[in-house]
Amino acid sequence: MSEVIEKGKRAKVASFTMMERTTEEKNAALCAIAAQLLQDEAHILQENERDLIEGKEKGIDSAVLDRIMLNHDRLVAIHDALLQVVELQDPIGEILEVIDKENGLHIEKRRVPLGVIGMIYEARPNVTVDAAALTLKTGNAVILRGSSSAKYSNQVLVESIHRALEKTTIPQDAVLLIEDTSRQTASELFTMKEYLDVLIPRGSKALIDTVVANSTVPVLETGAGNCHIYIDEVANPQMTTQIVLNAKTQRTSVCNAAESLLIHRKYVEIHGEELIQVLLDADVTLYGDEAICNMDSRIYSATDEDYATEYLAMSLSIKTVDSVDEAIQHIQKYGTKHSEAIVTELQDNAKRFQQLVDAAAVYHNASTRFTDGFEFGYGAEIGISTQKLHARGPMGLPALTSEKYYIDGAGQIRQ
Amino acid sequence: MSEVIEKGKRAKVASFTMMERTTEEKNAALCAIAAQLLQDEAHILQENERDLIEGKEKGIDSAVLDRIMLNHDRLVAIHDALLQVVELQDPIGEILEVIDKENGLHIEKRRVPLGVIGMIYEARPNVTVDAAALTLKTGNAVILRGSSSAKYSNQVLVESIHRALEKTTIPQDAVLLIEDTSRQTASELFTMKEYLDVLIPRGSKALIDTVVANSTVPVLETGAGNCHIYIDEVANPQMTTQIVLNAKTQRTSVCNAAESLLIHRKYVEIHGEELIQVLLDADVTLYGDEAICNMDSRIYSATDEDYATEYLAMSLSIKTVDSVDEAIQHIQKYGTKHSEAIVTELQDNAKRFQQLVDAAAVYHNASTRFTDGFEFGYGAEIGISTQKLHARGPMGLPALTSEKYYIDGAGQIRQ
Repeated sequence: MSEVIEKGKRAKVASFTMMERTTEEKNAALCAIAAQLLQDEAHILQENERDLIEGKEKGIDSAVLDRIMLNHDRLVAIHDALLQVVELQDPIGEILEVIDKENGLHIEKRRVPLGVIGMIYEARPNVTVDAAALTLKTGNAVILRGSSSAKYSNQVLVESIHRALEKTTIPQDAVLLIEDTSRQTASELFTMKEYLDVLIPRGSKALIDTVVANSTVPVLETGAGNCHIYIDEVANPQMTTQIVLNAKTQRTSVCNAAESLLIHRKYVEIHGEELIQVLLDADVTLYGDEAICNMDSRIYSATDEDYATEYLAMSLSIKTVDSVDEAIQHIQKYGTKHSEAIVTELQDNAKRFQQLVDAAAVYHNASTRFTDGFEFGYGAEIGISTQKLHARGPMGLPALTSEKYYIDGAGQIRQ
Repeated sequence: MSEVIEKGKRAKVASFTMMERTTEEKNAALCAIAAQLLQDEAHILQENERDLIEGKEKGIDSAVLDRIMLNHDRLVAIHDALLQVVELQDPIGEILEVIDKENGLHIEKRRVPLGVIGMIYEARPNVTVDAAALTLKTGNAVILRGSSSAKYSNQVLVESIHRALEKTTIPQDAVLLIEDTSRQTASELFTMKEYLDVLIPRGSKALIDTVVANSTVPVLETGAGNCHIYIDEVANPQMTTQIVLNAKTQRTSVCNAAESLLIHRKYVEIHGEELIQVLLDADVTLYGDEAICNMDSRIYSATDEDYATEYLAMSLSIKTVDSVDEAIQHIQKYGTKHSEAIVTELQDNAKRFQQLVDAAAVYHNASTRFTDGFEFGYGAEIGISTQKLHARGPMGLPALTSEKYYIDGAGQIRQ
């Protein structure tokens, strides 16, 4: 039996035990894991160092190595994040609907765990603990399939988790790591419908696309953000500049950063030059259409590819449009259903934009950077869903749950 | 451009128009379609006759031909079903959550249409109208891919729908039929992620399995029901017999009918013979383990395959178990996550069974036959979901919707 199938079976068995665990038991386990990680610090950092050394030898990019790197502060941050999950409300058991039928049947729709969650992710050891914490809090079992570049770190972290769970009522098999990080094990997870209830890919667009294209297990898709800001005919210029600067430059590597600007021709004529200068002064590389390029020789001519690109960098594409509808159509074509914004003083245009733009979050007069589980007040975030089934936008703990009808009768039969 | 891609594009455009349509406009369209179908009765029945003649020539099974057949009464039933959908509450626009942040951001999570729904279904012309009605009511566009055995009927019905929509504000492209019923067009739908938001297969297990295995478009899975009734150690024998008879024999061809009986050894010893006789008297073919077979020579010996089979007929597999936990484990192995029941006077066992059995609907002292959108009071049913994401159990109109965050600000930027 392959490692994946064998661990799939064990996780499935553990998931049934998890269904019975109370909030107190799950929180006790989270606290135990947090404490154990700090206790095991020396060993964890030692194993993490092995990943870093092998990574350097293999010539892995320094930005990736930095994501893999653990130190005392980062371990404390992981510890603190665990304790934050303890504080979150347990969604399991919540009664979502009560139906009392005339025949006396009492029907309750309750929130229940999903079962076994498969997590496929890139080289970030903190995701190992984070995923374990969120799935455990929601009464699920998890199968972790991390990157080969973080294999020693992932192994030592899961060993710590197991040591902690040994002292609790939570089965160790509720958190299992696939140690073989070959492509083969990822492929096995894609189709292991018998033991996996959902697969969550976390990482690059390429990783997510591979999982979506090949998986027969249902996928919770967290996607890319080619986010637009549309500046309407009548918009407060000071507010506009602030929002654009914030959405583009406050943090460029995140999925809710703005990547493309659509500006109404009339706004371009009056306030365009000023906005362009502010962006150039902030060292943003601009790719514009003809009307925009004419304003400054430092602006590059935008191609279709620019409009389709999530730069994740200090770059921005710009297009002049003649109406809110043209802006909406452009977003329909190039958007990734993540976060989109309109800046306008015209309420009807704001309403039309919010209704017709097909995205998880549609802003009026605010920065796209707010699309985030913590900013929305959900306390934790599994990711930002760009799919339209099950969960959309920032996913908190309820995204890791399912529902079940409990029906109580006194011998009712159907007529 | 292939028919599927071309219609995908048109449906996508229509889906944006649908986002703006009010409940009144959608209901007016449903009424117009209902009236048009009766007006076009002669032509519809004539085209339906062509399907029946071709079907007979091809030697299609008479049960299938009966499902294809339309007549005055069935057309009136389709008409009436449309008017019932008019009466249902429109879920679109419902505000699911309101978050007011300290920084003044006002966040509303609202129910919105999914977009374009692809429906792949077998030879039932009524599904053509039913699917159009439910998707239209929820503000979606639909692409219908029916069976070649009902192609003339489907075409004439969609022509009628288009004639009706012409007089309304709903675009004709909101309901499109794929006329080429070759395998190729189904395959194209499986991967048309650009224009399809969800695929819903309706029909046999084989059809559903094919869609799930091959689709990269998210699927709403309506599955098979290998439903169990577990009779516990202490159960009211009269209630037990009624529930078992009802769940097995009231209607055998449906997914919520019972297919397997698990009986506690102590109940078998005291009341087993009586129950078995009642079932045999009702002409139910029984497949039992040794303890059951010993009771009557007419009982066949049950194989593993029997326990895994959804008979959809007057057949029932029976197994003796020693505890509620053994029953739960058997259901974990053979169940299809549809509907499961326990008959017991022991509240703790009922609670344990309901908590640990992983199914959409878990009954205590009632027949599994109640798992149904109409019985639950949802008024319409797209199907019964046996998946755990998005929707579980009987799916009413909300299963055909997604969510969107509307965020209103006054220039807020992220710190």
